[in-house]
Order: sequence, then C-alpha cells, then structure tokens
Amino acid sequence: MLGRLYAGEVCSAARTLEIVGERWSLLIVRNAMFSGTTRFTDFQRSLGVAPNILAKRLADFVDAGIFELRPADDGTFAEYVLTDKGRELQPVIVALTEWGDRWAAPDGPPVTYLHEGCGGRIRLRTECKACGETPAPTAVKARLGARFRKLRQGDGVVIGRQPSRR
Amino acid sequence: MLGRLYAGEVCSAARTLEIVGERWSLLIVRNAMFSGTTRFTDFQRSLGVAPNILAKRLADFVDAGIFELRPADDGTFAEYVLTDKGRELQPVIVALTEWGDRWAAPDGPPVTYLHEGCGGRIRLRTECKACGETPAPTAVKARLGARFRKLRQGDGVVIGRQPSRR
Repeated sequence: MLGRLYAGEVCSAARTLEIVGERWSLLIVRNAMFSGTTRFTDFQRSLGVAPNILAKRLADFVDAGIFELRPADDGTFAEYVLTDKGRELQPVIVALTEWGDRWAAPDGPPVTYLHEGCGGRIRLRTECKACGETPAPTAVKARLGARFRKLRQGDGVVIGRQPSRR
Repeated sequence: MLGRLYAGEVCSAARTLEIVGERWSLLIVRNAMFSGTTRFTDFQRSLGVAPNILAKRLADFVDAGIFELRPADDGTFAEYVLTDKGRELQPVIVALTEWGDRWAAPDGPPVTYLHEGCGGRIRLRTECKACGETPAPTAVKARLGARFRKLRQGDGVVIGRQPSRR
C-alpha cells in the first residue's frame, strides 16, 4: 500500500489509490476476479511479478480486507479469496479497461466483459440519479461534502489537499 | 508513465495503468478535471507533489495526448489543458471515488459529483447492454477477444499475460 502518500487529501479517490494504487495491485485483483486465481504460485506465474513484491501486495490486501486468507480444503496450501470489499473494485477495473479499449488497443479490445445471466456486453454508464441522463465529462462538477466545506472556505479549490492553517 | 511494465499483458486495464498508473498521475488529472487547474504552479501547490515529479508526469501526459500544452492568452505562461482522451478518464476517477466513499470514508463522502444540468448526483452504473440489468460482480465474466483467442488456446487463463511460446 502507498499508505499516507496522499496525506491531507480530502478525496476518496486518493484514499482508494493509497490502498490499490501500487504497481501490480489492481492486476492482482483483476486475476482473482476474472480468472479465479487464488494461489500464490498461480498469481506469480500468471503475472510474472517478483515473488517478494507479490507477497507484500497480498499481505497488504489481507490487512486491508480486500482478500482473505483461507486454508484450502486439503490444508496443503493457502488460498487468497476476494472479499466483498475486493469484489467491489470491479467498476475500477472495468473503467480502466474501457479507457484502454478506446485509447490503447489498436487491435481491438483484448477482453470483453459479459453478463453471465444473458451473455450481453457489460458497460459502465455515468448516470445522473435525478434525471437519468449520461452527462458529458465537462457537465460533471465536484462539490465538497458538508462536513468538509468549512475546511476549505474561500480557498477556491473544490477537490484536493486540505489547506494548511494560516 | 510506467511504460511497458506490464509487457505481454493482453488486457486494456494493464495498458491504461501503464499510462496513468504512476503515483500522482490520476490526481493530476482529477485536479484538472474538477478544479480547473491548468498551471504548473497551481498543480504543484494544490497537490504538494515534488516539482521534478510533477514536471515528469505532465511531460509524459503531453506525450500521451492526455494534456495539451497551450500558451496562455497573454503568453506569459503555459497551460496544461485536458484533451478528450484525458477527459474520458472521468469514469476511472469516479469509480475510485465511489469505492473510497464506501470503504475508506468514515466521515462520509468528502466530495460528491453533480450533474451540472439538473444538480442531481452522479453515479457509475455497471449495466448489461443486452438486458439492462446491473449484475452482481460475480455475474460478470471476462471473454478473450476473437483475435487474441488463438494466443491462449488451452492455457485456461482468460485474462493476463500472453503465454510464452513453448
């Protein structure tokens, strides 16, 4: 984990990146989510990541409650299994995939995500809860939550670091 | 940029992370997107990032076509302005925010995203294009694209590294 790299940030995206923003982290989650990988050796082989880095990432993930460590049925090895908290990272992985499909996949999308129920394609939709529209990126604005507003009064910056007291 | 850190990956999420997965990268995009930041000194001040790291990130982003460099009207400084490619990273930032709001925001969401048109809350919805349902994370499966299927025949792994030839 990046720990408190982004200390002072009043922003949930920064908090998330502190937990999953290290190299390899989201690819480990991806392999658990979409390839059903659970064993250290399988993560290692499928990612080609150095074992010491993988061990650190998995230990951090267990500490953070993103994976839980379970003994396999026969007790000969341990399995790393995604928790609900881990599984809810799915939209992050799908959003990264959709952007890459559009901007970094000259040969077409390498992987598509499908709905197991009906076989349809999965997509992420940015949606307004009130009117149901999908706004253009420029029509989405950030507003600081009520509890946090007093921290920033008058500094004109909506998102980011908590200003130091003057 | 992480460059070809994840070389051999047949996965758009890995490609995206090679472009935006470095420390600070997505927070720089976020500040441009939601605080309208355009000047080097404003990014530096609002993020508290070391100037040499910020300079590298912005130069990489200009190379990658995520920001473009424009002279300000009076010609006295340069502005970093998000391109369409950069603005389309919005769902990545919103997905990271939603996860952090749920799992890493004990005092409630620090920031909410609103639709400028009607003032409604913005959310990301995972949606099946065929049936319109929002599937549970466990009901979303990955399928390798047609062009890539022959690379992996029989190795049982849907997503991840291209296997080396044996």
